[in-house]
Amino acid sequence: MYSFKNDYSEGAHPRILQALLDTNLIQEEGYGEDRFSRQAAELLRERMGCHDADIHFLPGGTQTNFTAIAAFLRPHEAVIAADTGHVCVHETGAVEATGHKVIAVAGREGKLTPSAIREVLDFHTDEHMVRPRLVYISNSTEIGTIYSRAELEDLSRFCRDNELYLYIDGARLGSALTARGNDLSLEAIAQLTDAFYIGGTKNGALIGEALVICRPQLKEDFRFVMKQRGAMLAKGRLLGLQFLELFRDDLFFALASHANRMAELLRAGLAAAGYRFLTDSPSNQIFPILPNSLIARLEQKYGFYVWSRVDAQHSCIRLVTSWATTEEAVRAFLADAVQPGA
Amino acid sequence: MYSFKNDYSEGAHPRILQALLDTNLIQEEGYGEDRFSRQAAELLRERMGCHDADIHFLPGGTQTNFTAIAAFLRPHEAVIAADTGHVCVHETGAVEATGHKVIAVAGREGKLTPSAIREVLDFHTDEHMVRPRLVYISNSTEIGTIYSRAELEDLSRFCRDNELYLYIDGARLGSALTARGNDLSLEAIAQLTDAFYIGGTKNGALIGEALVICRPQLKEDFRFVMKQRGAMLAKGRLLGLQFLELFRDDLFFALASHANRMAELLRAGLAAAGYRFLTDSPSNQIFPILPNSLIARLEQKYGFYVWSRVDAQHSCIRLVTSWATTEEAVRAFLADAVQPGA
Amino acid sequence: MYSFKNDYSEGAHPRILQALLDTNLIQEEGYGEDRFSRQAAELLRERMGCHDADIHFLPGGTQTNFTAIAAFLRPHEAVIAADTGHVCVHETGAVEATGHKVIAVAGREGKLTPSAIREVLDFHTDEHMVRPRLVYISNSTEIGTIYSRAELEDLSRFCRDNELYLYIDGARLGSALTARGNDLSLEAIAQLTDAFYIGGTKNGALIGEALVICRPQLKEDFRFVMKQRGAMLAKGRLLGLQFLELFRDDLFFALASHANRMAELLRAGLAAAGYRFLTDSPSNQIFPILPNSLIARLEQKYGFYVWSRVDAQHSCIRLVTSWATTEEAVRAFLADAVQPGA
Amino acid sequence: MYSFKNDYSEGAHPRILQALLDTNLIQEEGYGEDRFSRQAAELLRERMGCHDADIHFLPGGTQTNFTAIAAFLRPHEAVIAADTGHVCVHETGAVEATGHKVIAVAGREGKLTPSAIREVLDFHTDEHMVRPRLVYISNSTEIGTIYSRAELEDLSRFCRDNELYLYIDGARLGSALTARGNDLSLEAIAQLTDAFYIGGTKNGALIGEALVICRPQLKEDFRFVMKQRGAMLAKGRLLGLQFLELFRDDLFFALASHANRMAELLRAGLAAAGYRFLTDSPSNQIFPILPNSLIARLEQKYGFYVWSRVDAQHSCIRLVTSWATTEEAVRAFLADAVQPGA
Repeated sequence: MYSFKNDYSEGAHPRILQALLDTNLIQEEGYGEDRFSRQAAELLRERMGCHDADIHFLPGGTQTNFTAIAAFLRPHEAVIAADTGHVCVHETGAVEATGHKVIAVAGREGKLTPSAIREVLDFHTDEHMVRPRLVYISNSTEIGTIYSRAELEDLSRFCRDNELYLYIDGARLGSALTARGNDLSLEAIAQLTDAFYIGGTKNGALIGEALVICRPQLKEDFRFVMKQRGAMLAKGRLLGLQFLELFRDDLFFALASHANRMAELLRAGLAAAGYRFLTDSPSNQIFPILPNSLIARLEQKYGFYVWSRVDAQHSCIRLVTSWATTEEAVRAFLADAVQPGA
Repeated sequence: MYSFKNDYSEGAHPRILQALLDTNLIQEEGYGEDRFSRQAAELLRERMGCHDADIHFLPGGTQTNFTAIAAFLRPHEAVIAADTGHVCVHETGAVEATGHKVIAVAGREGKLTPSAIREVLDFHTDEHMVRPRLVYISNSTEIGTIYSRAELEDLSRFCRDNELYLYIDGARLGSALTARGNDLSLEAIAQLTDAFYIGGTKNGALIGEALVICRPQLKEDFRFVMKQRGAMLAKGRLLGLQFLELFRDDLFFALASHANRMAELLRAGLAAAGYRFLTDSPSNQIFPILPNSLIARLEQKYGFYVWSRVDAQHSCIRLVTSWATTEEAVRAFLADAVQPGA
Repeated sequence: MYSFKNDYSEGAHPRILQALLDTNLIQEEGYGEDRFSRQAAELLRERMGCHDADIHFLPGGTQTNFTAIAAFLRPHEAVIAADTGHVCVHETGAVEATGHKVIAVAGREGKLTPSAIREVLDFHTDEHMVRPRLVYISNSTEIGTIYSRAELEDLSRFCRDNELYLYIDGARLGSALTARGNDLSLEAIAQLTDAFYIGGTKNGALIGEALVICRPQLKEDFRFVMKQRGAMLAKGRLLGLQFLELFRDDLFFALASHANRMAELLRAGLAAAGYRFLTDSPSNQIFPILPNSLIARLEQKYGFYVWSRVDAQHSCIRLVTSWATTEEAVRAFLADAVQPGA
Repeated sequence: MYSFKNDYSEGAHPRILQALLDTNLIQEEGYGEDRFSRQAAELLRERMGCHDADIHFLPGGTQTNFTAIAAFLRPHEAVIAADTGHVCVHETGAVEATGHKVIAVAGREGKLTPSAIREVLDFHTDEHMVRPRLVYISNSTEIGTIYSRAELEDLSRFCRDNELYLYIDGARLGSALTARGNDLSLEAIAQLTDAFYIGGTKNGALIGEALVICRPQLKEDFRFVMKQRGAMLAKGRLLGLQFLELFRDDLFFALASHANRMAELLRAGLAAAGYRFLTDSPSNQIFPILPNSLIARLEQKYGFYVWSRVDAQHSCIRLVTSWATTEEAVRAFLADAVQPGA
């Protein structure tokens, strides 16, 4: 049984483990004040050309989202997110547990637009309603799509004009930035947003996300809130070291590119066989629509999620690739999926 | 500069890293539903002779404490803790951030007694005050002392008689259970408490704590609250695997014993040189009282915290040993601390 | 300028003020333990034929909603409400500020149906999502409609079958229970729900809502949560006394009937003039659709809210009547609204 | 049975009720935007010589405290209060329920001093602990003492030097400002603090407290947080009108003076009979120490709280007077308390 269920089915890229081995007995300060974390932060700042950004390493994505939101917002301020956004549906109300409402709006292919946000602002007119304050987007999105530079610039301008913070959940930012058609970069993202995180867990790390805070007023006392929300690991070195390894050369991008390439192989193979897709996804998640009979057969050999029902005979499935996905597995899957008579 | 600052200055015990290497490319389910986590939980249940305990693996201690408390208590219910307790002073109000008051009472050598708790109960008489509901203790305590079986039995009986939950923060439970004079065991703790956690981070793991929920009514829906509080890692395997390695033989206890042995060496050496101690600590944290001039000299070669001022000429320092502390470093420290003329 | 803006534009019904005068210097216990509150609770229990209900008096509606929800739910449990529900849009995220998500679903004329709730349940399948637990409905609804007995029975059965609590926001329950076509009673509501409140503020009281908790398991320690959420007034007598006056005879229902009668006069007059309505509302809020030019003219003499834009020439306005609305004001409004040439 | 239990045993001063009667049918805006509230705020600003203060009217004291604290603090910021402070012990953890820790320090006669606060600041050194940010004091205190101008100036200077907000719980501010020996005024308090509230409930109003926000940075969006915390009444006129009546002449001070005079009569009479007191209280709460046998006898004719046990034969009781306390009742009590053979 080979799994295409997600991009965190395996451990870590071997270079990450090797770095852990190499540094294991070096004594370091705790709580993110170790040299690895400091070096990794410095490296990232250079990469982004953003020398005054604050960078913090947190264990996971849900925790990064709610810790940032808890730190950034006052009690009556709310988050705007696409209805497919991770904070809306897959974090067990983590943001609400910090006291903040998440306003879900219908996304366009999983993405938010200024006009959708404008509607929310127009509706929230006085103190009987929350004040929308932070726009949460994911790149790549939960359904595999990516933001173009023009789209992000539009959002950024709109947010600045309307006193909104723009925040990117970058759980799969590596895949987005190496996707077919992408024209964004870390530099551009650092310039266009107020904060975002670079996902490690889903791109080769054991665990770890790097939160980048660009807007000065959001930086103050962030480590207090991190500690309060359980996001400050005693062995913070574990997080910093991994990001050091991922970014000391192009490993982070190389791993994401591999994942995208495997997804593209799957997509091309299924498309060639005549199958359609829920979205045009250029990243490491694809959503082909297959006959239910075929799905049932594939489920005996492969792990994946059935995403949604399409019609009486067809469903959409989600296939996720990662740095660890082998071309061999992809080809086997395609052979099983597109074989004559399937 | 050799550090006795804490027991999380190094990475992980080599066997832990080896286990990560050995299993790295095995595909597993996410979010703690992997086989390693299931096996580790089963192993722990057997070890404790407690076959219906629920066991969850969480990244860190602060997070385990507040996630458990948030899951166990209703909004008006409060925690009772010793004023030296970690939840009182070193978690940046993490418990309060979940809405619950922590009532600090003066501990006796860092420990709570039924009579101290009784005073709190007598004071809280009606709905204008919180309802004390969970008794939080640490073993070993924040100042290195440990609970005897008789003490824990007294607390347990008192709590059951007064409808209080008894919870142990076991960040250093390994050290406590292998300390000189200890007469408690995992089995006994599972029988006498409602919930407790077994600390991995401070005893050889990269990260990870194993929360054991013994009382049936506290088990329901715990994974929902874990997820909500950011404590459910996508690669939960990382936590389960480490506990599997720590408990598949006696590694957990062997590592703690080593740490205790190193602390005992330090303690004996300093005592022989005539120094006194803040507490009689049999575990891996000791608190010698040294002349300030000596402290200043030692600080040039060793890392440690100055714990408190004792008098104009003396201060108390904290020395912490771990699975990684070398006997060589201990002997060097002693040589520097007790040398003639010091 | 006569206001049809809401049902809380005036003070209190004169009998309420007289009761305050009559009892003013009687010394009573504080915090709702006065004799008036006890008598009012007893009276309400009799009226509802529900002798073991717990009844608490709270100052306002938003506070009653979030205090009840905070007391009833565990941290990961969520509220289901119609998207027009007061808790969704007009309480500044008060429920979220207690940590709970409110799941908004499209209502049918402001009302929830079992099938809409079923969809929510089907979507929330595991611990990565909140657990829907409390169904919040308003009667009358925020757009003036009311629940029939059959509708409430369906919801009640559905909730019991699915381990959901059914809660009614009764800010305008008086109006609902005396509306044209209503076939519900306080008795029926007490039998069919787990908790609900009877609104005083919008039906002749100065302030005050009576929360009725029918389901035994929701009663425990409620006064602790009331106090914690600021809902326990030192002079609780002020609340109890008003409900005593409202329910010692039929004043509560008489006031609501008057408000409904005034609304019906408005409705009939506007309908006779050919105007349509946003909803068929039998209660004290009506939503006529008028030409913008007429609205502009009416705004010079009357206070009311413009509810929504209908087309380029027409908008919907909200007219609210109360125990204090005079027939004279209604006739004047109609004369201005339906005059020839309008 | 005559009650000296508290200062909220009766309804409201007759002039308050008359004002309610006189204005009852005037239509006004809801939610504190009525003319009475606006006039009362303007009047208070004039009284305080503080023309840019923001003034909000809230229903009760606990709610005012936690709403202000929730609005003023970031998540990791904490409150410092005397261990006798109302927020510490008698609000069922209301502040903690908004997520903030309350740090209790031993008070001196119920009062805080700069040196006590300094100790807290010195202890809280880094992000592993909360950041103390708001100093909460009560005037008069919970044990009847009052702050002198010099004491408040010291606290004010200390707070400004240390970036702390200074907040006064003025539930009994009227009594404090008219107490024997008082040298503070509303003007002085407005200059020396960042925010405070003027208590109505315990000084002749039915309900209501006036929160005064002096520091500009604490004003922003306060009404959002008020609404979110249930503190914004639909009939806000009820609150504004009462403060208008209390401050349109000197009624507020006259009522408090009366209460103090009654307390002084009690104090002088008991002192003349040789009884001692727990504190030297010049305000409307006194704490005489009486023989238990006398207390038992008095309890048959008078209501009051037994405050604390003093020795085997004596206890301290609390006697509270109010605007409604009659001299006749005071003399009767004294006659019973100091009669020969008592």
